Amino acid sequence: MTLHKAFIEEIKLGGVILSRLMPDDDLFTSLKKIAKNHGIERGIILSAIGSLKDVVFVNVRPHTGIPVKTEDMIEIEEAGTFELLSLEGNFFPSQEDGEPVIHLHAILGTSSGAVTGGHLLKATIFTTAEIILGTLAGSSVCKAKSDVTKRMELLKG
Amino acid sequence: MTLHKAFIEEIKLGGVILSRLMPDDDLFTSLKKIAKNHGIERGIILSAIGSLKDVVFVNVRPHTGIPVKTEDMIEIEEAGTFELLSLEGNFFPSQEDGEPVIHLHAILGTSSGAVTGGHLLKATIFTTAEIILGTLAGSSVCKAKSDVTKRMELLKG
Amino acid sequence: MTLHKAFIEEIKLGGVILSRLMPDDDLFTSLKKIAKNHGIERGIILSAIGSLKDVVFVNVRPHTGIPVKTEDMIEIEEAGTFELLSLEGNFFPSQEDGEPVIHLHAILGTSSGAVTGGHLLKATIFTTAEIILGTLAGSSVCKAKSDVTKRMELLKG
Repeated sequence: MTLHKAFIEEIKLGGVILSRLMPDDDLFTSLKKIAKNHGIERGIILSAIGSLKDVVFVNVRPHTGIPVKTEDMIEIEEAGTFELLSLEGNFFPSQEDGEPVIHLHAILGTSSGAVTGGHLLKATIFTTAEIILGTLAGSSVCKAKSDVTKRMELLKG
Repeated sequence: MTLHKAFIEEIKLGGVILSRLMPDDDLFTSLKKIAKNHGIERGIILSAIGSLKDVVFVNVRPHTGIPVKTEDMIEIEEAGTFELLSLEGNFFPSQEDGEPVIHLHAILGTSSGAVTGGHLLKATIFTTAEIILGTLAGSSVCKAKSDVTKRMELLKG
Repeated sequence: MTLHKAFIEEIKLGGVILSRLMPDDDLFTSLKKIAKNHGIERGIILSAIGSLKDVVFVNVRPHTGIPVKTEDMIEIEEAGTFELLSLEGNFFPSQEDGEPVIHLHAILGTSSGAVTGGHLLKATIFTTAEIILGTLAGSSVCKAKSDVTKRMELLKG
């Protein structure tokens, strides 16, 4: 079992990556490729704007306790198409194999003006995505699976 | 026809502009003025919080294809008043005339707790807007109209 | 009466603080502690992702005028649990006593895929919160109560 604890790290913002993704690009695959090709170990989404389709996201039921059970997490699949109104998240290397683990939360606009979203599992670019990543310099944090939440969470090594 | 392609640029975050807008200020006019008066060619919204009124935004219908047609885009006009919960976006110079092209997506809170929003066309400050812009240094990207989506999109020259 | 005015400041992004909060941590107390222990006078949320519970937030009624009256602000209390989809905001020292004043807007995902949120008054961490703060260097802005909106707003001294 991996024990996750609170931590605070003083770090710096390093280089910034500006990218434009194209229709039918897979969002997660594209971000992983950028991270690998540009040697970015740790980073955050500083800004993202565009549109998405074929989205899968997950939210938790009300009054869910810890440990979170699989049946507490509601997966929603939507063809869209959506405006990408907000994309928050980060990537850190997996403690196990060093591969980038990408954690994204998306908020999506629909034609009625209503807004939907959640913890993102899959998304495809509809028309474009203008993404600005900030790299985190001086961090030793990685991602490891938490036995409590069953998700990959930040862990300071 | 302008051919838009995927690109990735390694750039840096330059100076940061902290501004406070006042009731009845026009959001787009105010941001353009800041960009021009402070010589910021390219930038992103790093943080924004405040409240808006008299908002016009647009979303796409479900199952919209490419090329996007005018009738696929649903424009919504709302007097508000709203909490400004999220403002994502960027500005880059137009390839045609160098004028700043501002691309913003807003998420707005309503009194029921429901949330609305979309690609922003117009907005007026209600009580205040606290906006932190980050400038992008070392980029050669501009905005040009895409024949595919009919919108101004990022293009690496 | 404190007269609030528009202002524009050219500043810099200073150090970045990466922190992970734990279940049952109070969000506001945790952020205040980070600000004090790390000597951060002014900062913004650069990135935040996680989940919340026991949330209190406030929104304004439609067609609210200035000055905003107490009855124009609708307070909503929700046990959750929620995905934290977006957290926007900043902290600046109070003009009165120098204590950090934290202004946060949150957007929360629910199990139906619907999204709720507003100006945050209180929140407790559900499973985790991965928060990246950026410090603002070179600013002389503080927070003071506005007689017009009855809220703490940015004021350039």
